[in-house]
Amino acid sequence: MGTLNELFDPDRVAVVGATTREGAVGRAVTSNLLEDFDGDTVPVNPNYDEVLGLPCVDGIDDADADVAVIVVPPSIVLDAIEACGEAGVRNVVVITAGFGETGEDGATREHRLAEIADEYELNLVGPNSLGIMSTPSGMNATFGPENALPGGLSFMSQSGAFVTAVLDWANDNGVGFKDVVSLGNKAVLDETDFVDHWGDDEETDVIIGYLEGIEDGREFIETARETAQDTPIVAVKSGRTSAGAQAASSHTGTLAGSEKAYEAGLDQAGVIRAESVDELFDAAGILGSQPLPDTDSVAIVTNAGGPGVMATDAVGDTGLDMASFDDDTTAALRESMPDEANIHNPVDVIGDADVERFREALEITVEDDGVGAALVLAAPTATIDFDELADAILDVSEEMDAPVAACLMGGDRTREPKQRLQARGIPCYFDPARGIESLATLAEYRDIKAREYAEPMSFDIDRERAHEILSSVRDRDDNRLGVEAMELLDAYGIPTPAGEIVDSPARAAEVAAGIDGGVVMKIVSPDILHKSDIGGVAVDIDDSDVADTYEDLITRARNYQPDATILGVQVQEMVDLDAGVETIVGMNRDPQFGPLLMFGLGGIFVEVMEDTTFRVAPVSEPEAREMTEEIQSAPLLRGARGRDPVDIDAVIGTIGRLSQLVTDFPAIMELDINPLVALPDADGANAAAVDVRLTVDPEELDQ
Amino acid sequence: MGTLNELFDPDRVAVVGATTREGAVGRAVTSNLLEDFDGDTVPVNPNYDEVLGLPCVDGIDDADADVAVIVVPPSIVLDAIEACGEAGVRNVVVITAGFGETGEDGATREHRLAEIADEYELNLVGPNSLGIMSTPSGMNATFGPENALPGGLSFMSQSGAFVTAVLDWANDNGVGFKDVVSLGNKAVLDETDFVDHWGDDEETDVIIGYLEGIEDGREFIETARETAQDTPIVAVKSGRTSAGAQAASSHTGTLAGSEKAYEAGLDQAGVIRAESVDELFDAAGILGSQPLPDTDSVAIVTNAGGPGVMATDAVGDTGLDMASFDDDTTAALRESMPDEANIHNPVDVIGDADVERFREALEITVEDDGVGAALVLAAPTATIDFDELADAILDVSEEMDAPVAACLMGGDRTREPKQRLQARGIPCYFDPARGIESLATLAEYRDIKAREYAEPMSFDIDRERAHEILSSVRDRDDNRLGVEAMELLDAYGIPTPAGEIVDSPARAAEVAAGIDGGVVMKIVSPDILHKSDIGGVAVDIDDSDVADTYEDLITRARNYQPDATILGVQVQEMVDLDAGVETIVGMNRDPQFGPLLMFGLGGIFVEVMEDTTFRVAPVSEPEAREMTEEIQSAPLLRGARGRDPVDIDAVIGTIGRLSQLVTDFPAIMELDINPLVALPDADGANAAAVDVRLTVDPEELDQ
Repeated sequence: MGTLNELFDPDRVAVVGATTREGAVGRAVTSNLLEDFDGDTVPVNPNYDEVLGLPCVDGIDDADADVAVIVVPPSIVLDAIEACGEAGVRNVVVITAGFGETGEDGATREHRLAEIADEYELNLVGPNSLGIMSTPSGMNATFGPENALPGGLSFMSQSGAFVTAVLDWANDNGVGFKDVVSLGNKAVLDETDFVDHWGDDEETDVIIGYLEGIEDGREFIETARETAQDTPIVAVKSGRTSAGAQAASSHTGTLAGSEKAYEAGLDQAGVIRAESVDELFDAAGILGSQPLPDTDSVAIVTNAGGPGVMATDAVGDTGLDMASFDDDTTAALRESMPDEANIHNPVDVIGDADVERFREALEITVEDDGVGAALVLAAPTATIDFDELADAILDVSEEMDAPVAACLMGGDRTREPKQRLQARGIPCYFDPARGIESLATLAEYRDIKAREYAEPMSFDIDRERAHEILSSVRDRDDNRLGVEAMELLDAYGIPTPAGEIVDSPARAAEVAAGIDGGVVMKIVSPDILHKSDIGGVAVDIDDSDVADTYEDLITRARNYQPDATILGVQVQEMVDLDAGVETIVGMNRDPQFGPLLMFGLGGIFVEVMEDTTFRVAPVSEPEAREMTEEIQSAPLLRGARGRDPVDIDAVIGTIGRLSQLVTDFPAIMELDINPLVALPDADGANAAAVDVRLTVDPEELDQ
Repeated sequence: MGTLNELFDPDRVAVVGATTREGAVGRAVTSNLLEDFDGDTVPVNPNYDEVLGLPCVDGIDDADADVAVIVVPPSIVLDAIEACGEAGVRNVVVITAGFGETGEDGATREHRLAEIADEYELNLVGPNSLGIMSTPSGMNATFGPENALPGGLSFMSQSGAFVTAVLDWANDNGVGFKDVVSLGNKAVLDETDFVDHWGDDEETDVIIGYLEGIEDGREFIETARETAQDTPIVAVKSGRTSAGAQAASSHTGTLAGSEKAYEAGLDQAGVIRAESVDELFDAAGILGSQPLPDTDSVAIVTNAGGPGVMATDAVGDTGLDMASFDDDTTAALRESMPDEANIHNPVDVIGDADVERFREALEITVEDDGVGAALVLAAPTATIDFDELADAILDVSEEMDAPVAACLMGGDRTREPKQRLQARGIPCYFDPARGIESLATLAEYRDIKAREYAEPMSFDIDRERAHEILSSVRDRDDNRLGVEAMELLDAYGIPTPAGEIVDSPARAAEVAAGIDGGVVMKIVSPDILHKSDIGGVAVDIDDSDVADTYEDLITRARNYQPDATILGVQVQEMVDLDAGVETIVGMNRDPQFGPLLMFGLGGIFVEVMEDTTFRVAPVSEPEAREMTEEIQSAPLLRGARGRDPVDIDAVIGTIGRLSQLVTDFPAIMELDINPLVALPDADGANAAAVDVRLTVDPEELDQ
């Protein structure tokens, strides 16, 4: 796959399947291209000499095109694409539908389409795409009803209908785009390719997306991280709820990953997530045009006390804070404002304020070094002209290096000044909350830009031994391993209590003799899931009782299930659960993002309180540390309620080693260390993985 | 205070302080009344014979008015109000500012104003009000710039600027009102009075409010509950966040109650809470015009797959659910829709649908008994005319008894059909989430209407004994009582472990001998807060060691703080904490809502996980039960993870008894039972209040 520059900026675009038939897609695309495109449009159709006044060629090889738009019937699409490849056309937009979204036959056809694209190294959009647009050249290679206005947003959408809806709205609201792409079924080019491309595109200020899924989560994270350092990415990921995910899956035919994975993955990727259309464009609007705030502190200047309180609430809701003015600011406000004014934040210039008083208050407050951003909030009064107020805000904002948002609280009289402010990148709404939320988006992006991504954690481990242990799953019917795989953890340096699985009373006694204090003994059988329920676990056994207990456990297991496979009995050092904190470190493999790590405190905290956190592996040390910090029960690890703090680095190390293990072995489908007992800081190992369960796909083992 | 009918529907309105001076409030009010008011407007001002063409009288006694609007300077407002009282004018709107909001002098003046109003039984609005409006008679008795359009919303606002902002917007968006009142400082009439009045007003469909505080929380709850049975109440309560509360307090000069109290109190009152202006009017719009849904199940009919997924997500977010169609519905859809359509919910009529196909799909789905509400969601296509689609939605909605919302996703072309739909009460937005949220508001109000309010829990208790125990606080410097007040709980029938506070080793031994098993012994001193830290608590003491332990505890206390007041040693039955679940039942007194009850599980659950729930006391049995059900850790009370379920009725009983105690004694400012150990269901008391702390205001004790 080459660069996408030519896709969005071609000299000649061929429409394969162009036609003059009214209502046909092939006519709509040709006609849209004719409208504004600076380059040449070449209809391709052996049945016509001319389409809409343009000379028509018989085949793509006669077109000398940089981009081919395919609108022929599904049955001949593959031939048409192959012809493009043969003719040296590297950029293909497949509008024709009837592929993966229609069932099995379609999916087969789509698979073949991807093979052809691969063979000829095509940049292929679609199939089932509405098409693409690029405003600098006026190219509208879609069958949608309208071309986009020029602007700095580049927009990708997995829904064609969403593109038409957004353009209809955007054109009437002065919102402009650089490039637009309807992703269709993403058989070849997907969101990662466009993020990559637009990240290098000088004319793209903000990347926005409507996505129902992400093809390759890991690749997306890597690419988006890099892009987001310079270009903000805002996306609606729909199918967030289980009902929504089901609807998305029936809409696009793709298998949805879990919302937890998307939540973690998009955050790790530095994508700002919007939950609604309003949020998407509010965020895109301000990110494209305003400077980033130095601090989280907001100054509010208003002529209306009540709405000022609402805006202050919104500041609290978003995690921003209200600026405290320094003495100079307060003194300057006291001098220039009337006595009745509130010179503390939110600044109330009061009801009889004119535009000059607003301007003055705004100028004074934004001069304060502690102020990161400002909101101007005006209710209609006899002394305020919203047009003049908009001018004043624009004037002041030009000299500010802090962002500003405006709320003009009124009806039609605010329409024109609002549009004028928004055209200059100043968000303007009726609702104070929306203004504040826009400012919060800037602070969020500032933090994303400031991120420093560390390398994934990496340790000296024994990969071969791990492979050997994992391979033991071939002897199992159900692909599951239990405590018999404890050595897997050991191979990756995850601390486990002393012990082993033994197959005789004598060996049990030998092992127990080598362990200080009493031992825990457990029956080991893939066929017995709930060992405690059948009396298959014995705790705090003295050395002298070990041999008898061995016999006893075996008998119980036999009685419970005569045909159970019994691998032996685990004899393990007792871990003092009361001295530490039980945690759970787990992993499951997401279809899009791959290994998803989970961390939480054991027992009720995960099961009842649902107090968990997730990251896509592999994780860096700071990411693993965040996991231990951001659960609500985190204070319990750090010595809440008079307990000793645990050795948090031992927990972080275990997360990192597990991250490495599941990244090294895509065969591991699920894995839970439950409990990992986090112990107080002391000499030696300060965490103990007491139990493990995992599921392994043997077919993946030798890949 | 009489009925407010005359206030909103007077025959004659006097403007006390009417003037012809340009820019004066007295001119603006007179001129606004002249505009549309059906009744007579009477300027009152001894300096004029005529104001704006109306004959002017010298004093209010010559005006024969039903309502007096006061706009005179603050210094003569009190005289003017007194004159109204003398002249028999019962309804007074005080626009003049400069009262409680300006500091101490103003507060004194406002206090006097309230006294005069009380003396003459005046219905008094303000002071510091923008005025009032009522559209049936065209009365605009405000100095705002515009009159309201007629409609079914009655609107109260604690911010005058918010009234002008909302009217400016509402007039341009076709949103109409019955009555509007700017509450001002609420010296006499407050939110409760207007809720009460509008609840009986046939022409008010929905009550909406912007509130920064509630004067009397308990009275508001009682009144709003009754009103909300017939008339929905939607309110923005600002000052939700701590920064917002501070801003509100400096704006209105009132002491803000806690957000937890407002959250609980407004919910108990049946008020639907909006967090932004958009939410307020979205909710008001649909509540005023649409039927309530029978079920929570929503059908979505769309021509756009992607936006259909977004709407489905919104259904999940709001707690509604996606309707599963019955076989007849599916069969009918299969028959009438094209093969490519999705006949399951969300129904996708696909991109080439015309309005007739939309209409048919909508008609079929709403026929399904399981469907409680419907959303029609349309992206612009060549085959859809939004005007015709609006007509179809209006047609179908007229024959439906289920509510419907619409999303027309486009720009200016949607403006006219959108306004037409909204004028007929059908919410219509671009964003699918807003349409679904409106439908969720209807379901919320349906549940509020269906509430059955039970009487507060009431038990046979020993009130005199409780009074006596509380009175012991008079001997204290700090108004605090500890375990020495355990008998207070006993007086209200709250189960406590056996034991007493003793003042000699011998008595300690006697008490211990009467208790089965070991005992817990604690030093009892108001001066020693953290007893455990100084070794002032001894657990599981055998009878033979009790006397020695007594001496030991006293010695420790003396050593720690020689001048500490020592009330004795508590000897208490051991409660097996491991057998039960530690909970906390607490109360603090909110300035607006009075006693606020708190419930949560003990220790980390309250302190670290912040897993708590609140109710304004007194509570009914169902309310107390809800408290035990709605905390996230509730499953632990009901036997999660293999434990015995606790006797939940004993916990509910304790909450009810505490509710009664703190309602009976306003002197109790704070009280915590920590822990209340909830024990498994068995014979005898199944909960044990092990410790108590409370703060008592001695001055309130004899009220």
